[in-house]
Amino acid sequence: MTAFEPRDPLWEERVRRSFARQPFMGHLGASLSHLAPGEVDIEMPHRSELTQQHGFFHAGSTTSIADSAAGYAALSLYPAGTGVLSTEFKINLLNPGKGEKLVARGRVIKPGRTLTICRSDVYGVTGDREIHVATGLFSMICLEGVED
Amino acid sequence: MTAFEPRDPLWEERVRRSFARQPFMGHLGASLSHLAPGEVDIEMPHRSELTQQHGFFHAGSTTSIADSAAGYAALSLYPAGTGVLSTEFKINLLNPGKGEKLVARGRVIKPGRTLTICRSDVYGVTGDREIHVATGLFSMICLEGVED
Amino acid sequence: MTAFEPRDPLWEERVRRSFARQPFMGHLGASLSHLAPGEVDIEMPHRSELTQQHGFFHAGSTTSIADSAAGYAALSLYPAGTGVLSTEFKINLLNPGKGEKLVARGRVIKPGRTLTICRSDVYGVTGDREIHVATGLFSMICLEGVED
Amino acid sequence: MTAFEPRDPLWEERVRRSFARQPFMGHLGASLSHLAPGEVDIEMPHRSELTQQHGFFHAGSTTSIADSAAGYAALSLYPAGTGVLSTEFKINLLNPGKGEKLVARGRVIKPGRTLTICRSDVYGVTGDREIHVATGLFSMICLEGVED
Repeated sequence: MTAFEPRDPLWEERVRRSFARQPFMGHLGASLSHLAPGEVDIEMPHRSELTQQHGFFHAGSTTSIADSAAGYAALSLYPAGTGVLSTEFKINLLNPGKGEKLVARGRVIKPGRTLTICRSDVYGVTGDREIHVATGLFSMICLEGVED
Repeated sequence: MTAFEPRDPLWEERVRRSFARQPFMGHLGASLSHLAPGEVDIEMPHRSELTQQHGFFHAGSTTSIADSAAGYAALSLYPAGTGVLSTEFKINLLNPGKGEKLVARGRVIKPGRTLTICRSDVYGVTGDREIHVATGLFSMICLEGVED
Repeated sequence: MTAFEPRDPLWEERVRRSFARQPFMGHLGASLSHLAPGEVDIEMPHRSELTQQHGFFHAGSTTSIADSAAGYAALSLYPAGTGVLSTEFKINLLNPGKGEKLVARGRVIKPGRTLTICRSDVYGVTGDREIHVATGLFSMICLEGVED
Repeated sequence: MTAFEPRDPLWEERVRRSFARQPFMGHLGASLSHLAPGEVDIEMPHRSELTQQHGFFHAGSTTSIADSAAGYAALSLYPAGTGVLSTEFKINLLNPGKGEKLVARGRVIKPGRTLTICRSDVYGVTGDREIHVATGLFSMICLEGVED
């Protein structure tokens, strides 16, 4: 993994502010737990509202934090005055979504002027034990003239 | 599109019951709006809790109903005494998630003993106008000995 | 499926010329079999060089014509003076790749200035019988200042 | 990355024999360059037959070795008397396919009785310089009663 140089000196504040303006993350009870240039982690404690019919985290809730983690990893490297939008992604659900919380780790694989490609891995955490719940690849587009 | 024969005569009741036991669908305010063998539609009215930082439906909420619609389309064709789990999917976000509601239309492409492949298309609906918001491909696995 | 308006009046000649300059298509024995704005079909007769260890068309050869069909479907709608490049795709292999030939049908789902999203379906054809071998989603990028 | 235990003591011979029986790999001029349990690398020297209209490796040829590397990484962990088939994959093309040769590195992420999930990364190699050309996720199914 290469180290990335942020192009906006205020990248961290910008990511935190944008995350705070995503009502859906609040609705899931998700929060930022790690930020570095090209790296964003999001945590989501277990609540029954987030589960499917067998009691596991729903693939949709798992995917939602994976997508936001990837999107904000991309945004951390964008120049000021631009915004981020997911154009597509793919996710493999490796193990049932179990744990006291899920953690999604979004990482930039390749930054680009238009498209930034990221991966995001989701882990189910119970105490200090981690299960690899999901892995995915995400394409994020950089929008000019959009405030993020 | 071929017509599909359900293998469980009680398929419709089973899909409705399982959907009702997905707390995450309730948390999103989503409901079943169409059922046929190999076909399930899910609706989700606009609420600010479901949006991202630009006010559109979050890719995660869009994907969540796309995934459930695909999963229940698969389940509608499963034999009694089996359950459904998403193993992987891919989604392209074609237009910003705008509308009074989103409708996800899950359709079985190819049923199988182990894997059932579905597509799911999501539309943003305002009055009688529809925008194509997302299209995806989903692989659903059939679990023996799991009550769904 | 909406009808699409080509932006380059010479789109057909351009697609044919570009296809003829893809040595890999020649190496696979593939040829164009249908062209319309936003629609391209590619055929590939069975030859043992294209198969895997069980005698079926290799997923790689199947995918190669699916990708080219999608790319040229996109290119058929591009303005003059631009080129096409695949940025990502996803494919589900629905049935073993059997038949006297494979036909890939690339269709534009959503054209865009930067990204054009296509699907491509591959069929194994024997006489007048068709088997659905694969279905995929493809993101094509439009490159300015590249001759295609 | 965990170390994996092969279940078939003759796994290496079996992977080599199966690869030798894939005519498509020969047609591409591809060869095995690294084998370990859960790990397979495949190399493909540059030849004009493998390129697209701009002179880069065609996305199809790039994907073909990525897919075979992932499939054989999975097969290296399968029990004797079973075979491997790709059920689906997704690939992001990160940089144009340039180099004296491409190397695809297939790695098992999660082995399973039915599905084994792998990633495969493709690099363009010129001298001792490597460019990351593609990254993908692959689902491989284990077929009972098929000799591979």
